[in-house]
Amino acid sequence: MLDLSLDTEGGVPLVDQIVDGLRRRIDDRLLRPGARLLPIRRFAEHHGVSRFTVVEAYDRLVALGHIKSRRGAGFFVAARPAVAESTAPAATDRAVDVVWMLRQGLESADGDRLKVGSGWLPADWMDQDGIRRNLRTLTRRADVRLTSYGHPQGYLPLRQQLQVKLGEMGIAAEPRRIVLTHGATQALDMVARYLIKPGDCVFVDDPGYWSLFGNLRMQGAQLVGVPRTPDGPDTEAMKTLLEQHRPKVFFTHTVLHNPTATNISPAAAHQLLKLAERHNFLIVEDDTYSDFQPGPATRLAALDQLERVIYIGSFSKTLSADLRVGFLACQDDLAAALTDVKLLAALSTSEFNERLVYLMLIEGHYRKYIERMHGRLADATGATLRMLERVGFAPYAEPEGGLFVWAKAPALEDAAPLAGRAAKAGIMLAPGNVFRPQMQASPWLRFNVAVADDPRLERFLAEQAG
Amino acid sequence: MLDLSLDTEGGVPLVDQIVDGLRRRIDDRLLRPGARLLPIRRFAEHHGVSRFTVVEAYDRLVALGHIKSRRGAGFFVAARPAVAESTAPAATDRAVDVVWMLRQGLESADGDRLKVGSGWLPADWMDQDGIRRNLRTLTRRADVRLTSYGHPQGYLPLRQQLQVKLGEMGIAAEPRRIVLTHGATQALDMVARYLIKPGDCVFVDDPGYWSLFGNLRMQGAQLVGVPRTPDGPDTEAMKTLLEQHRPKVFFTHTVLHNPTATNISPAAAHQLLKLAERHNFLIVEDDTYSDFQPGPATRLAALDQLERVIYIGSFSKTLSADLRVGFLACQDDLAAALTDVKLLAALSTSEFNERLVYLMLIEGHYRKYIERMHGRLADATGATLRMLERVGFAPYAEPEGGLFVWAKAPALEDAAPLAGRAAKAGIMLAPGNVFRPQMQASPWLRFNVAVADDPRLERFLAEQAG
Repeated sequence: MLDLSLDTEGGVPLVDQIVDGLRRRIDDRLLRPGARLLPIRRFAEHHGVSRFTVVEAYDRLVALGHIKSRRGAGFFVAARPAVAESTAPAATDRAVDVVWMLRQGLESADGDRLKVGSGWLPADWMDQDGIRRNLRTLTRRADVRLTSYGHPQGYLPLRQQLQVKLGEMGIAAEPRRIVLTHGATQALDMVARYLIKPGDCVFVDDPGYWSLFGNLRMQGAQLVGVPRTPDGPDTEAMKTLLEQHRPKVFFTHTVLHNPTATNISPAAAHQLLKLAERHNFLIVEDDTYSDFQPGPATRLAALDQLERVIYIGSFSKTLSADLRVGFLACQDDLAAALTDVKLLAALSTSEFNERLVYLMLIEGHYRKYIERMHGRLADATGATLRMLERVGFAPYAEPEGGLFVWAKAPALEDAAPLAGRAAKAGIMLAPGNVFRPQMQASPWLRFNVAVADDPRLERFLAEQAG
Repeated sequence: MLDLSLDTEGGVPLVDQIVDGLRRRIDDRLLRPGARLLPIRRFAEHHGVSRFTVVEAYDRLVALGHIKSRRGAGFFVAARPAVAESTAPAATDRAVDVVWMLRQGLESADGDRLKVGSGWLPADWMDQDGIRRNLRTLTRRADVRLTSYGHPQGYLPLRQQLQVKLGEMGIAAEPRRIVLTHGATQALDMVARYLIKPGDCVFVDDPGYWSLFGNLRMQGAQLVGVPRTPDGPDTEAMKTLLEQHRPKVFFTHTVLHNPTATNISPAAAHQLLKLAERHNFLIVEDDTYSDFQPGPATRLAALDQLERVIYIGSFSKTLSADLRVGFLACQDDLAAALTDVKLLAALSTSEFNERLVYLMLIEGHYRKYIERMHGRLADATGATLRMLERVGFAPYAEPEGGLFVWAKAPALEDAAPLAGRAAKAGIMLAPGNVFRPQMQASPWLRFNVAVADDPRLERFLAEQAG
């Protein structure tokens, strides 16, 4: 007799529960190929559900290839190869590299691990209800395109809304200068593909955004790290680097820099733009964490008005990473050229998802939601700083906002072995070396404040120190 | 007085109608900056709507930056730069090239144009109701992830379902060998990025899929066209080409080849695989039109079992292009490497959209929906063939199915000038040269049978012949 316990109150349809339950038993070989399932009527009686529910569940399992129906004889578990889900196939042979980090963060098989090193907020911090509400609105509307390709540059009303949003930061960008993308990642990728040929020199923040480094290396770029100070890129160090290198472009975070959570100063921004003009390179300003910044902040694009700056933003951190909606803003000609790259590489982005983000932005709750999040993040940052102090870690700088604390312990010279020990203890840390362009050793670690309050982390760090 | 006519029955919320209507008037300068809007109560009375509706609409227009509220004085049109939507910025200086074709097909501004050259079905052929129904299901379910990044390889149940689907075609592919992608376009892009270095030689179908050619040229590949016969790639011609070239990979459509709508023969498939082995190149089998094939057909991946073949599929043509769900299947190691490329280039794909496709596939209507579509396409193909005969065009081969007829007129040597004249008459044709790797002249044209029944097309073609 099958031991399926069905939950009539959790919101998951009974059919799905039966399908999932039986499938799990088949995958786990508790039900073996050839085994006969309970007849529909007996299954329904035994579990107190309607026969229609059972018929639908069995039909779906047939469609999925898990069971077969033999006329007059009932339903049987099908003979099929075991469906084993691979863990990252090459993860074991691999050093702790960028892709390994990405997979660590994204693979869901390890649901129990404490992802202190992750770069986004847990699902329960996000506005799930708001997304559901606007999904319902969109689903009801007869005029929403569900099946056609979207506009090459993306859904116009969202671009118009972004014009307003950028305008509030002092960046003038008409919708024709804005291209919607599959997250900030695709925006960075498009820019890199368009601007960089193999062998080209590219300046990046050191420390900086490691997923970008992986992408740039895939394009064949030569990465040169510009040291990051609490006031932004070290422009004096950059001057020295510019004596030896001719970069095509400098990729940088200005607001709530990942990983240090610091902002560029107006003076550093001005210096940087002057260097870009003198040495004729472009700047890609990745402002993914923009909406986590509680007060005003300097943005390169606001000084330069998109002359030499390509501005990139995203809703992955504040609204949903699954919708994959990001954008870039730049000069007219470049926007047209980058749209061509987008067309050739991915055709269009999903207009439905872009409409959903648009509704979230205009319905008026977004501002309040973000303000609440600022408060919650400030509390969590305070708690993380106090916990780190207790275990002997000091922050690089007091974070201005956002979800990261960048910190180290005085005795620590290389955080990578610590991260290795943490992984064995079920804690995923983000050691400083992965944030460096050549993976150089680093004593620093990046802590996600929304996750760092778990007592397992403090216990682990205290043990390491003791 | 504003002349907004509100529709209470079309399903579009009144608030949206008011917002859109007023915005259009502001954009068109019918309402000029500084102009005062009707007070809320008068607007409500005049249009017979509730005051709450007007308040919400005005609030949204304020959020959008179109109007401003002055305390006690009411609502006024805001001063802001005119929002002009660009048409393709460089379209006029450009030759009829690949990107121009893509933009022609996708830009929605030209809603009136008859897109005989388009590569997909009109929205009213698609299962809009099914998508809405499953969107509602997903929105109601509490266990659906709405905000987190998806699994690097894509939603596992959909990959399991694809295993079944591929299994039915004789292709054994466990979920770990399947990677979900942002449409077939991203799948092709990932493969090209991984396999091809600038200067590498790549074989393609001639004629073939022009968007792919654009992508391959962006990667710096050298394209060599392999002539297409009604039985598939001309393997004799390929042998000659292989005396001069060492391709890394051959990209080809086997089933319902775009543009000729022909299928590969078993003999040609076998020959082709032998050549790939002897000359050590890989084959990318793009099977985007697979589900339009009414009966059984030969697939390279079914012969070779993904040894040298990378199989690519998509739901863009049958379910929705807007969901951006495609996939590839290949060897284990290659699947892992291509997942790395996906992570670096785009992070993840949207699990929500993948779940939607999964529901569409398992709910049991998909097969019937596709069967109905086969019937409808067969009728439309018959009508298109008869129409073409009346205006003196002959097909390349009787199509086996799908949405294309590839045809020419005996007197025509180059279809491009004809397409130019058609564009002036509001008809978008797809002339043969855009389907050729070096844009060589071609007398052929590709007709979309779902659009070709419009009398404007027959009239235009008859005039050209006369």
